[in-house]
Amino acid sequence: MEKANIESSKKGYVMTGGSGIQSYAKNSSFQRDVADATKLLIQNAVSEHLNPRNSPGLETFYVADLGCSVGPNTFIAVQNIIDAVKLRYQSSNDKIPEFQVLFNDHTENDFNTLFKSLPLNREYYASGVPGSFYSNLFPRASLHFVHTSYSLQWLSCVPKEIITKNKGRIFYTGAREEVTKAYARQHAADFANFLQARAREVVPGGLMVIVIPSRPNGVPHSRVSFNILHGIFSSTFVDLAKKGMIDEEKVDAFNIPIYHTSPQELEATIKQNGCFSIEKIESLPNITTKDVPHVVSLRIRAITEGLIKEHFGEEILDGLFEHFTNKLLESLKDVESGLAVNLFLLLKRKHEEDTSTF
Amino acid sequence: MEKANIESSKKGYVMTGGSGIQSYAKNSSFQRDVADATKLLIQNAVSEHLNPRNSPGLETFYVADLGCSVGPNTFIAVQNIIDAVKLRYQSSNDKIPEFQVLFNDHTENDFNTLFKSLPLNREYYASGVPGSFYSNLFPRASLHFVHTSYSLQWLSCVPKEIITKNKGRIFYTGAREEVTKAYARQHAADFANFLQARAREVVPGGLMVIVIPSRPNGVPHSRVSFNILHGIFSSTFVDLAKKGMIDEEKVDAFNIPIYHTSPQELEATIKQNGCFSIEKIESLPNITTKDVPHVVSLRIRAITEGLIKEHFGEEILDGLFEHFTNKLLESLKDVESGLAVNLFLLLKRKHEEDTSTF
Repeated sequence: MEKANIESSKKGYVMTGGSGIQSYAKNSSFQRDVADATKLLIQNAVSEHLNPRNSPGLETFYVADLGCSVGPNTFIAVQNIIDAVKLRYQSSNDKIPEFQVLFNDHTENDFNTLFKSLPLNREYYASGVPGSFYSNLFPRASLHFVHTSYSLQWLSCVPKEIITKNKGRIFYTGAREEVTKAYARQHAADFANFLQARAREVVPGGLMVIVIPSRPNGVPHSRVSFNILHGIFSSTFVDLAKKGMIDEEKVDAFNIPIYHTSPQELEATIKQNGCFSIEKIESLPNITTKDVPHVVSLRIRAITEGLIKEHFGEEILDGLFEHFTNKLLESLKDVESGLAVNLFLLLKRKHEEDTSTF
Repeated sequence: MEKANIESSKKGYVMTGGSGIQSYAKNSSFQRDVADATKLLIQNAVSEHLNPRNSPGLETFYVADLGCSVGPNTFIAVQNIIDAVKLRYQSSNDKIPEFQVLFNDHTENDFNTLFKSLPLNREYYASGVPGSFYSNLFPRASLHFVHTSYSLQWLSCVPKEIITKNKGRIFYTGAREEVTKAYARQHAADFANFLQARAREVVPGGLMVIVIPSRPNGVPHSRVSFNILHGIFSSTFVDLAKKGMIDEEKVDAFNIPIYHTSPQELEATIKQNGCFSIEKIESLPNITTKDVPHVVSLRIRAITEGLIKEHFGEEILDGLFEHFTNKLLESLKDVESGLAVNLFLLLKRKHEEDTSTF
């Protein structure tokens, strides 16, 4: 038997657990706006592309949410999917199957909090699946619908070749071209692994929805609002190093493994993989991000705190984010003048390809 | 669609998490001895009762361990099962399927520790399923092998009718007959719910192994070694109340929801359910419990600490277990003179019964 090849030990980047004031659960309203915006798109996707007659007598419909964090957004997303599937089955008078939802995130994710937050009145079986979604996580042809939102911008690791070459920065904003290219290469390689794993796991005809913050085609990296924001965050570290509050060498060695890809780059990797057809690729309606600096700062803290704590120690966190908030007071307008798009992709697992070689 | 009916909010009894000196992970060597003793029995069960030809071309073999706690015993048990199934498929030259293991325990179980302890070289997909095994946890006909060890002695709750009627005791050892009867009724009702849920979830021909500490048929409750031990534990609380260290009324209102059933009682409930055939019911080879008092005390602490903390507060724990250890120095021989048996049951899901009414 071939090995399951599950990299459970691999260190992942996880959102801050629990439900405190600095938790992901309390600082993910932006991601929730995204979930709301995708509701209708998911409904249309299911109504147009899911045919109950293709799997007659199906007893259980398997839904996976990859990079689910601790809720509540994941619960909203899976409910949207289940509602849409039920509606589709009802409309064709087919017997509605049972639902099994598989909540996936890194092994370091706070699954205890996730499990305690599961909706009490849920109409699905719930399970948690720990591990990196850049590797296989589920048995062959076992998923009918895969959803992943605001997770594929995270790289599996900082590109090895830039670890010592991105001095005075923690991101590729304003960095040398070779740094940006290394980030882009890493993202393409990770996304290729993601597609290869999912191609094995998703049933023929199965659907996959990907929501991802992206750089519009043709827009330079430096003009992408997310990147401008990360540039300001980067300079916060440099300021602290100058003040002697953190070690300059530590800043040089620290890099945040996030890359904002473009529709073009995604399409190229999907075509290269060959197992999925692109049924839809479109921008979500523009979600206003006119948050006050304090809220933006808390949001960035919720998603980066774990990484920073591990590298610099916990004691720098409060000072760092206070300074970041102050910098945002001056420069949030630069972020708002940038360009960005939240992409919605609908992929369908093709029937014809043989997956036996994976 | 019918409701999944998953009581995730229901408070469960969980073993002490983490990996500290008082954790379940460090104080479950007795349970591990049981796992070792069952290895050969599981191998025989699979070789005699599992026929790959009954599910030709099976892609994925689903194994569930119910009441798994945090490891390491659950990992040993599932590996034994997987090794046995692989051997069975090899011996008949059938293609070995992939394995999906479902680790179940109460929502309050420390799944974070469980996930971080998963064997790195495992050859199975792993997922965690939170919720009480006295309700449905998995989709219909989705399991091929169910295992549960040292878990079905736990009741779903303290029998309501005895909550105020078991003064000066925290268990049914030495209690009035109506108290013991209420415990027995609760266990039979819980076990009936367990079987009903599993009958729905296990495929026809699927196997279920139950390992459970039991009272030999015909032996009075008062002579069962587990019950003698719990009687000594019970009197520890009374001693502390007499010394004014804990509130007497709180002791009166506290009861440990464990019942040691007999083979006869189990068989009666299995027959009443009707969906499973009993393929084997036998005693495990006698596992010596000649542990020193300190070790016995730590073992009881690992499995009861959560309940006690919730009822009496954390501050009584050290004093309570110190006194319990001292009492065991005098009376451990009484426990050793008692009778008990670790039962191994092998059940097989019948083909003929219709499960649609569940």
